[in-house]
Amino acid sequence: MIKAAVLGATGYAGVELVRLLTNHSEVSLEILGSQSFAGQKISDVYQNFNHVLENECEELDLGKVSKCDVAFTALPHGASKTVIPSLLEQGVKVIDLSGDYRYDDVKVYEEWYGEKHSSPELLKESVYGLPELHREKIKNARLIGNPGCYTTCSILGAAPLLASGIAETKNIIVDAKSGVTGAGRGLALQTSFCECTENSKAYKVTNHRHTSEIEQELSNIAGEDIMISFTPHLIPQKRGILSTIYINLKKESSAEELTEIYKKFYKDEFFVRVKNTGELPETKHVAGSNFVDIGVCYDKRLGRAVVVSALDNIVKGAAGQAVQNMNIMFGLNEKTALSNAGFYL
Amino acid sequence: MIKAAVLGATGYAGVELVRLLTNHSEVSLEILGSQSFAGQKISDVYQNFNHVLENECEELDLGKVSKCDVAFTALPHGASKTVIPSLLEQGVKVIDLSGDYRYDDVKVYEEWYGEKHSSPELLKESVYGLPELHREKIKNARLIGNPGCYTTCSILGAAPLLASGIAETKNIIVDAKSGVTGAGRGLALQTSFCECTENSKAYKVTNHRHTSEIEQELSNIAGEDIMISFTPHLIPQKRGILSTIYINLKKESSAEELTEIYKKFYKDEFFVRVKNTGELPETKHVAGSNFVDIGVCYDKRLGRAVVVSALDNIVKGAAGQAVQNMNIMFGLNEKTALSNAGFYL
Amino acid sequence: MIKAAVLGATGYAGVELVRLLTNHSEVSLEILGSQSFAGQKISDVYQNFNHVLENECEELDLGKVSKCDVAFTALPHGASKTVIPSLLEQGVKVIDLSGDYRYDDVKVYEEWYGEKHSSPELLKESVYGLPELHREKIKNARLIGNPGCYTTCSILGAAPLLASGIAETKNIIVDAKSGVTGAGRGLALQTSFCECTENSKAYKVTNHRHTSEIEQELSNIAGEDIMISFTPHLIPQKRGILSTIYINLKKESSAEELTEIYKKFYKDEFFVRVKNTGELPETKHVAGSNFVDIGVCYDKRLGRAVVVSALDNIVKGAAGQAVQNMNIMFGLNEKTALSNAGFYL
Amino acid sequence: MIKAAVLGATGYAGVELVRLLTNHSEVSLEILGSQSFAGQKISDVYQNFNHVLENECEELDLGKVSKCDVAFTALPHGASKTVIPSLLEQGVKVIDLSGDYRYDDVKVYEEWYGEKHSSPELLKESVYGLPELHREKIKNARLIGNPGCYTTCSILGAAPLLASGIAETKNIIVDAKSGVTGAGRGLALQTSFCECTENSKAYKVTNHRHTSEIEQELSNIAGEDIMISFTPHLIPQKRGILSTIYINLKKESSAEELTEIYKKFYKDEFFVRVKNTGELPETKHVAGSNFVDIGVCYDKRLGRAVVVSALDNIVKGAAGQAVQNMNIMFGLNEKTALSNAGFYL
Repeated sequence: MIKAAVLGATGYAGVELVRLLTNHSEVSLEILGSQSFAGQKISDVYQNFNHVLENECEELDLGKVSKCDVAFTALPHGASKTVIPSLLEQGVKVIDLSGDYRYDDVKVYEEWYGEKHSSPELLKESVYGLPELHREKIKNARLIGNPGCYTTCSILGAAPLLASGIAETKNIIVDAKSGVTGAGRGLALQTSFCECTENSKAYKVTNHRHTSEIEQELSNIAGEDIMISFTPHLIPQKRGILSTIYINLKKESSAEELTEIYKKFYKDEFFVRVKNTGELPETKHVAGSNFVDIGVCYDKRLGRAVVVSALDNIVKGAAGQAVQNMNIMFGLNEKTALSNAGFYL
Repeated sequence: MIKAAVLGATGYAGVELVRLLTNHSEVSLEILGSQSFAGQKISDVYQNFNHVLENECEELDLGKVSKCDVAFTALPHGASKTVIPSLLEQGVKVIDLSGDYRYDDVKVYEEWYGEKHSSPELLKESVYGLPELHREKIKNARLIGNPGCYTTCSILGAAPLLASGIAETKNIIVDAKSGVTGAGRGLALQTSFCECTENSKAYKVTNHRHTSEIEQELSNIAGEDIMISFTPHLIPQKRGILSTIYINLKKESSAEELTEIYKKFYKDEFFVRVKNTGELPETKHVAGSNFVDIGVCYDKRLGRAVVVSALDNIVKGAAGQAVQNMNIMFGLNEKTALSNAGFYL
Repeated sequence: MIKAAVLGATGYAGVELVRLLTNHSEVSLEILGSQSFAGQKISDVYQNFNHVLENECEELDLGKVSKCDVAFTALPHGASKTVIPSLLEQGVKVIDLSGDYRYDDVKVYEEWYGEKHSSPELLKESVYGLPELHREKIKNARLIGNPGCYTTCSILGAAPLLASGIAETKNIIVDAKSGVTGAGRGLALQTSFCECTENSKAYKVTNHRHTSEIEQELSNIAGEDIMISFTPHLIPQKRGILSTIYINLKKESSAEELTEIYKKFYKDEFFVRVKNTGELPETKHVAGSNFVDIGVCYDKRLGRAVVVSALDNIVKGAAGQAVQNMNIMFGLNEKTALSNAGFYL
Repeated sequence: MIKAAVLGATGYAGVELVRLLTNHSEVSLEILGSQSFAGQKISDVYQNFNHVLENECEELDLGKVSKCDVAFTALPHGASKTVIPSLLEQGVKVIDLSGDYRYDDVKVYEEWYGEKHSSPELLKESVYGLPELHREKIKNARLIGNPGCYTTCSILGAAPLLASGIAETKNIIVDAKSGVTGAGRGLALQTSFCECTENSKAYKVTNHRHTSEIEQELSNIAGEDIMISFTPHLIPQKRGILSTIYINLKKESSAEELTEIYKKFYKDEFFVRVKNTGELPETKHVAGSNFVDIGVCYDKRLGRAVVVSALDNIVKGAAGQAVQNMNIMFGLNEKTALSNAGFYL
């Protein structure tokens, strides 16, 4: 059994990790770290866990965590930076859900996060934990920078076109819509029920940090520096991200041809479901599961591809992907604890 | 492996059965019966099943179903009546989700359903599939009348007080609130998004059929004929039933004493979670799981117990309970495929 | 023009007052009091007011308020107690939306609120502002205790039966469901979007303060002391309260007879709409309007009336009723600014 | 008083017209046309109208309608084509909410609607009813093609940049999100509560009819033929459209400069509210009102403007705009019955 710690277990990403790991046949969940709820049972904080998992949340004790095989760090941005180097030294593999270890280039991080990176040397070995693109590196990684929710959805949606060479690299636009769990469990007027319900809005237009993550990965795929427009929106649902991606093409194409490019690119990927021509993803199809659904359209008037991708932001966009990474790192079947169909209802 | 058929697999209760059985280690899902979608893959009708279960739905073929060990019949009211006797003859165990086989007394059925029962002789052997009350009988049953969603929630909420003898049997009132999946997938103005959202209402006040089911079971427990007020309400959420139950008591009591009665009554029941004094259930705590949560309050001014019970109407109120019954009928661990904590988010 | 001040203008009840008064032909809105947003324009705090009302919110200045004809006090419980006596002395009529001036008997207040009343002498002259029951007293009042949302819905739902003498006064049960605006704009985990959506629950079972308000008014009507069970529930919608009321009857009756009692009782009341037999209220029918809808059923098996009443908690349950009271106090047409049909969608 | 008929009064756009006209001081609502509900009171079909408007719906009687001054035709696509020429002959002014009379060029209509236009000669005189662009022509029009909801939001969002000459006309992308009322009241699985809630999706990607309307108007403004990407999305709320518009610029700019362009362009427009730099619209700010809110951002890395516009699809996107057009056609104050702030909650 793999001994696992979840640090930050009572946030939304953290508790989703707990939900998934509780059903994982190869994992023993040793530590539920929570600053705010230390001393309380997880089943008191999230009462759906009664009769299922009644472990106590505890304050961070590095000595104790160092006896685990893997730590999932779902800590507030910055907090993980002090903890992670220490855990690595003790031989604990770390899957970090913050933005700290997602970057190839420390300068990009520092520009978009507006502060010095505390352990830039770790960026050299940390692996961007998107298995569909970096599976081989993940296998041997000690430290995973687990991708953000918007980024997973957008990168996987755009990757095949950029890899195929058919895409123009200018004028790529990603218009993304997210459910409210993406904002976390902290209290804020804008995530209160009466302010969210029946409301939609864009936010952080032109300057959301995830832009830089998407650009990094798409640039790597295309082999040239790419800059994109990325616009996040908040929509009144709990789970789900839908990205609508606009990409000009270098030559005439068709929906069938584009779909074929996607099907080929993802032919071995269980968690990516490419829609048949004429079908489109919906967030309901992926809610509660680790799947990404992608549909591709072609606008023949404009010579432009319009790609729609959907995932559950706290599963494939956070906790599920983290478990997928763990499965790969520990040589397990990648689908373990992740092969269910989600909720639909 | 137990060979199972789900007849009516594309309704909301049916597809929830499919969701649960897909994760059941001892079941092989042989037949997905669907009149409306015969010839289509379940993963086209419910696209969350892509890559997970891509079996074709098929029209009813009794010969084929008769090779299964168990059939779940989630057919429109009445349809199951013609199919079920034939399946039983062929040695198939049947778990019926309609109201047809839930009654001890055919007269009660005929009064509340307003029509003749087509196979009254089967009522003698059919077992009311509420494991917490009838586990022994379920073990050896061929035919289960799987309880309704409102009824499971209400009966389990009231049973301990009636069994204890502390309850007065007059003036029992059950005020129940249900999510919209309870109305099924059929199209109706009242279940359209724009009419449901931001709306709550009572319906079938004084004459909902589930009244008779609740009365039958509570009367059996109390050992005398009980009549109750049962009022169903539709509230703007997908899953969940919350029953608020008012019961006068024969003597002074306290919240602690009442809670103790409940904890004792359900001490061996994994799927019933009795709240500690001062805590109350919420539908979010049970969504997606097979649990029933129950909280008990005491109004000392009035000498009255107020009990609140919650469950997920399409899990413990339908598909989950059906799987629980199957587990019992086939000698499996009762929790198989049902021991997860639900969604919360 | 009537000069009006709204104190506490940026809470949900306050801003609904602003919305209604902005459309009131006889009112000049002089003061928008707000501790939290003093110095900001109301149209910055609630951006729907841009181009419509761009007045600045201001800190409480009693001297300035004293130049108004009427002050609506939608202040946190307790705060209004220090302000109101002073305003009355200056000749300002006060419509208070807190619980402070709703009681005939200071002891009842102190028992349910758990503290001393600061100006018990004012309770003698303050009028319970439910126009359908106390219109004559409201006409000449200086100080209105504007009823709560649950209470208005419940009292108006039960009043006709109690007035008619047909109702038994024991075993009256009020099971009420409320939208989330009722909890106000303050931040709380339980009113955050992700915790509220797809969730329903009961709260303050057996001890909600509004119980005492309902009992006071129903006792007055019945001419004897009445105690009731009142259970509030939170349901996932913004606006709306639905009360389901159970009342045993002294003699056999029928839905038609009971409906007739209600139609007669409210025959001159514009804001009360009694449903025809067989029809029931829905919160959607009253959202955004000052109407209360009431439907009456009869359970002939049990000799019990089941009454369902619905209103918009921040209109007829707060701001709309306050405007209705003001209209009466100032001799205006009672319907001024209140005669619209609400939103439906 | 202006005598008005609403034909198609029981659809969502129709009943919103009824809601607005009921509060219009200069209008007498003579006819509520409804094929489906003829003979029933509007207050039975939409029970929020009880005590407010209890007129009977009636079948189409052209003779009767011809005695009105204005007819609002909110009929299914095509149905209005037979009715409208006849009404115009009788001297009735017509404001048509279908797509039939929105086009300058019959060929564009026939290409996007896939059928012959039945009265192409009327296209010469019909006026595209977007007052902010065509007020002068509307004043003297007999026949208004009232713009669609997506189009109003998108055209008003893009117009100032195109008029200013700063915009490149290639690579304009409009990504629009709509509430479910936009789909109307007809029954469909995809608009049922359980399928819509917690779901978002794109639809009719690259081929939605409104594309052609937007292109027509933007081309007129720019003075050259413009083709755009327009992608509609369905999101889980009742009211509201949010359009996010991407436009490359010919020269460097700034958010301040772009905002200034918008403020100047709309300086006399009451119903257009341009946000200050750094602020963005939300659908909640416009729900229930006739306002369009627009915020403008500048991506200096890409030399691209990102504009966000929001309106209520059944008010400014349908019924409210129709009333605004009527006000202009009849020489009334354009704001009559439309100057309220909307709901917010």
